[in-house]
Amino acid sequence: MSLNDESLKELKAELLDELAKETPSKTLLSLRLAENRSADIGEVLEEIIEDDELLTEALAILDILSTERAANVLGYLPGDSQLEVVGGLSDTHVLKLLEEMGSDERADLFNLLDEDRREGLLRRMAHKEREDLKRLASYEEGTAGAIMTSDYVSIASGMTVSKAMMRVRQTAPDAETVYQLYVLDSDGQLIGTMSLRQLMVSRPGALVDNIMIKDVISTSVDEEQEEVAKIVARYDLIALPVIDADGRMVGIVTHDDAMDVAESEATEDIHKGMSIGQLENGVSRVPIWTLYRKRVFWLVLLVFANLFSGAGIAYFEDTIAAQVALVFFLPLLIGSGGNAGAQAATLMVRGMATGDVGVKDWGKMLGRELLVAGSLGITMAIAVAPIGVMRGGEAVAIIVALSMVTIVLFGSLIGMCLPFVLERFKVDPATASAPLVTTLIDASGVLIYFSIATAILTPL
Amino acid sequence: MSLNDESLKELKAELLDELAKETPSKTLLSLRLAENRSADIGEVLEEIIEDDELLTEALAILDILSTERAANVLGYLPGDSQLEVVGGLSDTHVLKLLEEMGSDERADLFNLLDEDRREGLLRRMAHKEREDLKRLASYEEGTAGAIMTSDYVSIASGMTVSKAMMRVRQTAPDAETVYQLYVLDSDGQLIGTMSLRQLMVSRPGALVDNIMIKDVISTSVDEEQEEVAKIVARYDLIALPVIDADGRMVGIVTHDDAMDVAESEATEDIHKGMSIGQLENGVSRVPIWTLYRKRVFWLVLLVFANLFSGAGIAYFEDTIAAQVALVFFLPLLIGSGGNAGAQAATLMVRGMATGDVGVKDWGKMLGRELLVAGSLGITMAIAVAPIGVMRGGEAVAIIVALSMVTIVLFGSLIGMCLPFVLERFKVDPATASAPLVTTLIDASGVLIYFSIATAILTPL
Repeated sequence: MSLNDESLKELKAELLDELAKETPSKTLLSLRLAENRSADIGEVLEEIIEDDELLTEALAILDILSTERAANVLGYLPGDSQLEVVGGLSDTHVLKLLEEMGSDERADLFNLLDEDRREGLLRRMAHKEREDLKRLASYEEGTAGAIMTSDYVSIASGMTVSKAMMRVRQTAPDAETVYQLYVLDSDGQLIGTMSLRQLMVSRPGALVDNIMIKDVISTSVDEEQEEVAKIVARYDLIALPVIDADGRMVGIVTHDDAMDVAESEATEDIHKGMSIGQLENGVSRVPIWTLYRKRVFWLVLLVFANLFSGAGIAYFEDTIAAQVALVFFLPLLIGSGGNAGAQAATLMVRGMATGDVGVKDWGKMLGRELLVAGSLGITMAIAVAPIGVMRGGEAVAIIVALSMVTIVLFGSLIGMCLPFVLERFKVDPATASAPLVTTLIDASGVLIYFSIATAILTPL
Repeated sequence: MSLNDESLKELKAELLDELAKETPSKTLLSLRLAENRSADIGEVLEEIIEDDELLTEALAILDILSTERAANVLGYLPGDSQLEVVGGLSDTHVLKLLEEMGSDERADLFNLLDEDRREGLLRRMAHKEREDLKRLASYEEGTAGAIMTSDYVSIASGMTVSKAMMRVRQTAPDAETVYQLYVLDSDGQLIGTMSLRQLMVSRPGALVDNIMIKDVISTSVDEEQEEVAKIVARYDLIALPVIDADGRMVGIVTHDDAMDVAESEATEDIHKGMSIGQLENGVSRVPIWTLYRKRVFWLVLLVFANLFSGAGIAYFEDTIAAQVALVFFLPLLIGSGGNAGAQAATLMVRGMATGDVGVKDWGKMLGRELLVAGSLGITMAIAVAPIGVMRGGEAVAIIVALSMVTIVLFGSLIGMCLPFVLERFKVDPATASAPLVTTLIDASGVLIYFSIATAILTPL
């Protein structure tokens, strides 16, 4: 079995059908729910809440699940749906759900609630729980602290393998993962790690300190989540331990959370590549007003940047008036330069994001781009020259071919260099988006084209 | 500790320094290597082979590592570096390394070798190993079969918990993961799964059949790797079991391999978004000729598509000759339409890739895009109108503002719809790349602009 739109649609229809009856059968509903995974129930619930706005039905479904299962399902809902659900529940009910949630999801949900609700809930929590929640909720969004969980298995230095094994068994129900264990000294400093696999094949009487790996890969609470995901991927980790400013271990980021981060970072990069601001939610769900705001900023800015292209054209008005046929090739030339430049920028931005390209590689990349873009320019000039002959004779063909090579080469170099310049000045290289690169190249393309045209057409 | 360019550079320098001596100290080298992770040594080795072309030194470093470690490091090298290494080793040495590699990496490397070498190696392998390798190497690239490993822990139906635990301990050294166990019946059919965590907290005498989860998430050998990564991410799996056409379990895809797939698929999507063909390797490493080939196809194609814009301009030559000031706004108008359209296309393409948007959402998305793009167009028209007044008077301002709204709206709708049309005709929606969308909109933008201009400027 795997994810399947059809079967989820069916499940949703069946649940809503049953709930629409005068006396819905609890047994039937709970049977149907038991057959499905929390992730899938979460998706169905999300649609019921967001598309159909049936909050009562959604709450009824949650109510049929065990508290543990309900907390699980809740964790799969996007923030706005979580808020709607929690808005329909009593504090007592919410407290029970919070208790069953993973500590990272608990903190996320908590951060969404308004001040009053938060205070009310905190007051009814046990001291230790309260402090843990407040701490986890206090880390800045997008950092290791914000995505980590405090439910990990720690082992005191000096324990034997058999004692450690006992501790794993005890912690098993609550920990996010029991497959990687962390050895802490009496100060809470992380001094070693070992896999459960290693523990299982070790002699029961051995000391964990003797079998643990001492050189632990870890990260700090305020490390960016993108970096965290990269480390997890690079070293194929099940979980990455997180250390606070005092060197104490405070949590772990698990592989599945790292994978979610990697996906949302890739989405952000792709959107940025087209000058779209960061969306908190999927494009099908963000409010229309938000979508407008996230798109309008660069679009309007680029309108003004495009005025430079216009100014270039105005400057060459005489050349254009004398040979209107030149305008025929304008979109083609600046379009080609823009496309080649956007390609070059994209290759660099993604190369930097994946760690394949670093600032130090600038010179090497420049040399390569010169060769590639030069070849591209020549190929495209050859393609366009015959059309130049057809439309305006030999002179125009020469102007157009020369311009094509120059514009593609120049555009590609702008596109390639911009990400490095941005990175150098600590601006996200992804700001070198296709629209920005295209606009920059449009303006220079106009100048190059009409300068070449003026030079060739002006009688000596 | 985490990944750090500086420390890797240092490590590389130290290793090369030591190897350059007349009698390099093996102890020193092996000490330095022992301090570092296989992933990091792999990166250093890769640079030594590819940037510095020092194969002898690379082989010397591999030689100092234990066979197990060397196999591990080899697994982190890109294909071309692996080939260089293997080219410098005897069959006997290669066989030893292959034996220690994970079955998935072994098959990948094997697929890179030439026919003769493969035959030679196969002849010297044990029957069972040979068959396993041949099978794994036979799956098509980009499928579950090609990325799965056959090193998983299977448990026979009917075993007790304590027997299963014993089997985990026995398999621990060789399995990719021991944390998810798969229960097979006598035909090799997958009938259940359980986590090691579950096994550990269960009564030793209990039967695995009674505690296993019977509804297993699995995938088929020929499922696309992108889909595989999505399933692993969606259900937060440690590993996803893979089933052959006869319903028998043949392997697992582990979470770290799924994460690598997700990253390379995201890179491919980003490149496609800028009309760049699929690169087998990082942009800093692919040969220049390949880079040229992967970029030139669409660029040249779009040169010809751009001729339509030219043709549009030629058609309106009279209008342009009469009012050359109109050309001033041409790059700005078609640029804005292209940018807005590329944004809309990108949002849809990524939405489809992450599963947020499906073909069924077409109507909803169209309605949203109408509202968003309409607002964007009006905002941009307001921004550009004053410049229209300044450059050409009121008539030009009205022409430009009207054209802006129409082009942005029309362009956004083209950009939004194209991915759905492509998906409908089973073409990858990512083909609706920014350059393609921009070119399409350029041509229609020219027509819209000059049609409006002609209509308004022509005396009644």
